[in-house]
Amino acid sequence: MTPGPLGILAGGGPLPGRVAEAARSKGRDVFIIAFEDFAEPAVIGGYPHATVRLGAAGRMLKLLRENHCTDLCLIGPVRRPSLLDLRPDAEGARLVARIGRAAFTGDDGLLAAIVRVLAEEGFSIIGAHEILTEAVGRPGPLGRHTPDDQAQADIARGIAVIRALGAVDVGQACVVQQGCVLAVEAIEGTDAMLARAATLLRPVPGGVLVKMVKPGQDRRADLPTIGPRTITAAKAAGLRGIAFEAGGTLLTDTQGCIEAADKQGLFLVGINPDLSTDKTGGDEAVPPRPPGIS
Amino acid sequence: MTPGPLGILAGGGPLPGRVAEAARSKGRDVFIIAFEDFAEPAVIGGYPHATVRLGAAGRMLKLLRENHCTDLCLIGPVRRPSLLDLRPDAEGARLVARIGRAAFTGDDGLLAAIVRVLAEEGFSIIGAHEILTEAVGRPGPLGRHTPDDQAQADIARGIAVIRALGAVDVGQACVVQQGCVLAVEAIEGTDAMLARAATLLRPVPGGVLVKMVKPGQDRRADLPTIGPRTITAAKAAGLRGIAFEAGGTLLTDTQGCIEAADKQGLFLVGINPDLSTDKTGGDEAVPPRPPGIS
Repeated sequence: MTPGPLGILAGGGPLPGRVAEAARSKGRDVFIIAFEDFAEPAVIGGYPHATVRLGAAGRMLKLLRENHCTDLCLIGPVRRPSLLDLRPDAEGARLVARIGRAAFTGDDGLLAAIVRVLAEEGFSIIGAHEILTEAVGRPGPLGRHTPDDQAQADIARGIAVIRALGAVDVGQACVVQQGCVLAVEAIEGTDAMLARAATLLRPVPGGVLVKMVKPGQDRRADLPTIGPRTITAAKAAGLRGIAFEAGGTLLTDTQGCIEAADKQGLFLVGINPDLSTDKTGGDEAVPPRPPGIS
Repeated sequence: MTPGPLGILAGGGPLPGRVAEAARSKGRDVFIIAFEDFAEPAVIGGYPHATVRLGAAGRMLKLLRENHCTDLCLIGPVRRPSLLDLRPDAEGARLVARIGRAAFTGDDGLLAAIVRVLAEEGFSIIGAHEILTEAVGRPGPLGRHTPDDQAQADIARGIAVIRALGAVDVGQACVVQQGCVLAVEAIEGTDAMLARAATLLRPVPGGVLVKMVKPGQDRRADLPTIGPRTITAAKAAGLRGIAFEAGGTLLTDTQGCIEAADKQGLFLVGINPDLSTDKTGGDEAVPPRPPGIS
């Protein structure tokens, strides 16, 4: 039996279009659920799609079934809604009740809960990184610039900090300059954290952005992403480069990222935190990763 | 032998005056080194003092010795200097070399390094909390308002987050709302973190500020402080209350804090993190505190 079209639940940014393009290039049709106020018409307009309010879960499930979608991919950021903004339809209210508090609180419980509920509704959830295999950041430096010893030490410190935070389900990123942690990301987002770091940078060289997947994070729900804008923001913050978790970060535009990094003199390096040596000596203090996380 | 006057190395805010007042009330003279651009003349003006640039360590040590100070207390915030701002004198340059990188980098290495060097110079360093025994926050609610179950769960989550962060030598504070960590403090300071939290608060009730001593922090160098302004900032951020580490937090003005909290409807509660029950179930993920921390 031929599988039906890939159902794409599309939030903002360019990645929903990339997923659609990648699926089509492998000969698979797509059907896009474009979340109102988030999905960008220019990105998804060229594909079969329907625009649906985030709260209209009933309509969404009906459309997916009518279009014979059995495999779904969630991609592109949506802002966590308030219950007031959500205005759930009848099915939406039922799902909200099933998702429960996670829909409105918790750090990353919402998307994981949505993935779980969709699976219970009989859909298969495919991670965007499984489709966009070429957009997943690889280990090692992309582009011309590479981190020096100081930057590598700062990256190691950033890994230790994010792991410690990840163990309590907070944040995916931080900014480190010569061993000093300038800023830690909670829910404000990487751009806001970079803007803050810009005001906190000390008058000494250095400064790196480290971005990782949270331990235990459902990669089908939400992966860290980096785009050319991230590189421009890091440059504006006075940083020397960006380290991202290889295999766990989506580059919205790999070539554009490399060009931006090369042009602005930043390094852009894929790291494998499990292989990296912690040069800060703080490893004893870092809690072990929960089992089952590779 | 009568001890000489207590030497007070004074940064900003009202606490240097409180330390001087407390010492005098116990019959001990004081001599204040007022750090230029930080110590407030109105606070220290009534006591014997000399204004000294932060970098003029030679002059500082000479003044302390001339005034027969053997016991020192560091109190009041100073901004971490850049080497350029510091303009160290000859002795200052020698001390900077001894303190090394910690003077300009690292999260809280600077003050601890200064305490260590002063001790090596033959001075005894007394923690402000040992002098301001009445300003040290006690366990339990101060004022009229108390945290409800939701707030207690958020406090427990905040404790877990700060412990995890503290284990990697970052931050002393975070803001939690219904289990969601809105903001984590790195070096931006509590006021800046509260201003950010105000923009991140979700449209659901709740929101608490949790402030603790870092595990391993030298309490003689730097203790978290709370003043009436902190309460006003927490109120402005939309929070319901503040939890601070009992025995490890200085209240700049206990009565003023209680009045501000009562008037603005916030709870202000001293917590003992070692006794608190972690209701988030995240305790397994929290690294043990280093030995020697009570």
